[in-house]
Amino acid sequence: DGGDRHRVVVIGSGFGGLFGTKALRRADVDVTMVAKTTHHLFQPLLYQVATGILSEGEIAPPTREVLASQKNARVILGEVTDIDLEKRLVTSRVLNRETVTPYDSLIVAAGAGQSYFGNDHFSEFAPGMKSIDDALELRGRIFGAFELAELSEDEDEIQRLLTFVVVGAGPTGVEMAGQIAELAHDTLHHDFRSVDTATARVLLLEAGERILPAFPESLSRKAEQALERLGVTVLTGHTVVGVAEGSVAFRTPAGDEEHVAARTAVWAAGVTASPLASMLALAAGADADRVGRISVGPDLTVPGHPEVLALGDMVGVLAPDGTPTPLPGVAPVAMQQGRYAARAIRARLDGRAPDAFRYRDKGNLATIGRSKAVADVKGLHVAGLVAWMLWLVVHLFYLIGFQNRLLVVLRWTISFVTRGRGARLILEPTPPAEPVSSRPPPARAPRSRSSPSSASRS
Amino acid sequence: DGGDRHRVVVIGSGFGGLFGTKALRRADVDVTMVAKTTHHLFQPLLYQVATGILSEGEIAPPTREVLASQKNARVILGEVTDIDLEKRLVTSRVLNRETVTPYDSLIVAAGAGQSYFGNDHFSEFAPGMKSIDDALELRGRIFGAFELAELSEDEDEIQRLLTFVVVGAGPTGVEMAGQIAELAHDTLHHDFRSVDTATARVLLLEAGERILPAFPESLSRKAEQALERLGVTVLTGHTVVGVAEGSVAFRTPAGDEEHVAARTAVWAAGVTASPLASMLALAAGADADRVGRISVGPDLTVPGHPEVLALGDMVGVLAPDGTPTPLPGVAPVAMQQGRYAARAIRARLDGRAPDAFRYRDKGNLATIGRSKAVADVKGLHVAGLVAWMLWLVVHLFYLIGFQNRLLVVLRWTISFVTRGRGARLILEPTPPAEPVSSRPPPARAPRSRSSPSSASRS
Repeated sequence: DGGDRHRVVVIGSGFGGLFGTKALRRADVDVTMVAKTTHHLFQPLLYQVATGILSEGEIAPPTREVLASQKNARVILGEVTDIDLEKRLVTSRVLNRETVTPYDSLIVAAGAGQSYFGNDHFSEFAPGMKSIDDALELRGRIFGAFELAELSEDEDEIQRLLTFVVVGAGPTGVEMAGQIAELAHDTLHHDFRSVDTATARVLLLEAGERILPAFPESLSRKAEQALERLGVTVLTGHTVVGVAEGSVAFRTPAGDEEHVAARTAVWAAGVTASPLASMLALAAGADADRVGRISVGPDLTVPGHPEVLALGDMVGVLAPDGTPTPLPGVAPVAMQQGRYAARAIRARLDGRAPDAFRYRDKGNLATIGRSKAVADVKGLHVAGLVAWMLWLVVHLFYLIGFQNRLLVVLRWTISFVTRGRGARLILEPTPPAEPVSSRPPPARAPRSRSSPSSASRS
Repeated sequence: DGGDRHRVVVIGSGFGGLFGTKALRRADVDVTMVAKTTHHLFQPLLYQVATGILSEGEIAPPTREVLASQKNARVILGEVTDIDLEKRLVTSRVLNRETVTPYDSLIVAAGAGQSYFGNDHFSEFAPGMKSIDDALELRGRIFGAFELAELSEDEDEIQRLLTFVVVGAGPTGVEMAGQIAELAHDTLHHDFRSVDTATARVLLLEAGERILPAFPESLSRKAEQALERLGVTVLTGHTVVGVAEGSVAFRTPAGDEEHVAARTAVWAAGVTASPLASMLALAAGADADRVGRISVGPDLTVPGHPEVLALGDMVGVLAPDGTPTPLPGVAPVAMQQGRYAARAIRARLDGRAPDAFRYRDKGNLATIGRSKAVADVKGLHVAGLVAWMLWLVVHLFYLIGFQNRLLVVLRWTISFVTRGRGARLILEPTPPAEPVSSRPPPARAPRSRSSPSSASRS
């Protein structure tokens, strides 16, 4: 543990940062991971937290616990506010505390956030699905909408409360829509007395011409059929143009503008690179693309800085001829790039030049609901139960921690058998704070406050 | 399900309200439970959520799921704002929606909140331990304090961050202090690199002359010894007189005023009855005691209103001669009173007068840490492993839901074997929002913002 060891700083605790750090386990370096959350988030299962299948801790183990036995790694909490490429310093901040960490090699893996395509004001009424706090917020909104519907006697209001709009039909949007439909038609059906939860409508709005555009067309079609059978209304070619309280406006394929009254909306439509990408691009004089990703070389280095590697959702990788290499924004890309970055740093320390990064596409999976999924594995297209079992195995395999795997298997088994949701707690505010409507509240019986034995809370 | 059935309204989803509702399962009545949360909270295990052993959903099942198969029961969400004893109406509110529910019989079981003995401003710096949101807030503060200590190089600041004060040595205070000590000395010890978590101090401040005052003296002494062995400093006869940011002031037994620098404080010192107790007392012309509890008759009825029963932590029960019956504020009392209220309502419907409520004291249990507990069961005093196993069995037995029991057994087993904490996620704000100190931040290396390749986030 000498002071002269090569110092690697890793920014981010996502798939890229974590796999990069772990791959440096046996390297003769000191690694410092700087991250703005204390956990590693297994994002592919985030929709299961938002819909009450899993509890948040099960997909978000503490990073420092994951790395506890890796003696050459330390973890510090902080949001990076500055990267000084000249002096090789990373500045991070938590509360009013600033920490400056020097590096010899730097891995920047800060990921991406939700993009509202310039309409950030949509986010209040249609939260994204990027963090644990997003998922818990949505969980409260989804289950809270049913609670409010149970209290209402106004048919229009009940319909608005029981209309759920999911914007964007990538894997997350498809999974959310499928789960909400299952909740309404199955899980919650026997829990309510006044309202018939099965009358809920789930709309999946997609601007493109088909859902799951990263999959082959035949699988998109099968996934769409499976969603429709679950009770989801799939509307492709529909572009959302406005989200306000209780309403989502969209343009139809015919070019008309319409809107639907909906209390709950979920935004799963677009991503934008971490602000660190453009910060880094500006500092290094590198390019950034339309969604804010910094362009890095075939070896993931930032132009002019062989000691700085950037990877994952915040970068666009250039081929040796300078043309962009299209890579999907999925976990396997970040994992492989994280491991590659560790290899590249070790090669440089040994005086070797690393080969260019090459993505090994192991396939593409998306699940739709109870025992339905689609899989595209090396050209083999599978839909249905087999794909679903493959999905289960792959996700369990990459989940971090023995305890979490055990708990998740247990929860999945019980959810499958009982059709229940074991983690559907609504946290404060209960339910979401914005008012539902300005109509006069429905009354079940005449009210009286003037009676002598009536007491009002002060 | 005719409209002429006897209508019972139950206020509260705690032990009293839930057990009362369930005991009416076979009665020829319609039950409406009105509660301000959508879950039933198993409060005796709340400290395990605050310290990362359990996830919140495991001790807080959705009330409507618990009651789904009870056909004569419905659940509505809302905070009760008015009880009209004359017209027999309960008014509840959620957001801007008001609901008025008529009753023929009413069970009020709204419980108690944390009391700061007139010093409510303490609550900002020393949260209570009454709700799931309290527990998650404390979880973030406790684990967040270690994160901040890891970043600091100022010895005074580190000591303040690693000092935890628990106020009040009832079962909750004892359990919290024991758990925080275990976290510091055991669980977190290998996760941190800069800070030695074992240097943390846990102070348990108790105004009374011994801890666990509801237990026999010999068990208090044994519990105190067990806590000291875990590394807790037990200070009895110490009255907290002030809580501010980073500091707790107290009066020593000698009458001196002292203070300790502590970033994290937990308030487990006092309870105050739900505001509904005094509202009801005012409306019925009944007495309320020092902690706001309404005085009810031996049959738990509110004076002059045989159709209204109040129970649990919000009431004081009077003996037939009008003297107060002292009952502890524990779950078994509320459970038995809830069941009694159901029996009393059925008796009244049959034209019989119910016997007076009689509490069957089955014993008293408190756990201190890994395999240590104290038990006082019908005069039999047990300390150590046997008491701890009894504690485990009793708590599992009363936990609601098969899935939760299974998950809790699994988490307990893994925590016991690995000494880990599976649910220690820090939610936003990360960590708690109030600033830690106004000192200049420690720097690990010279900072620079003027370098040409330095980029600052806008």
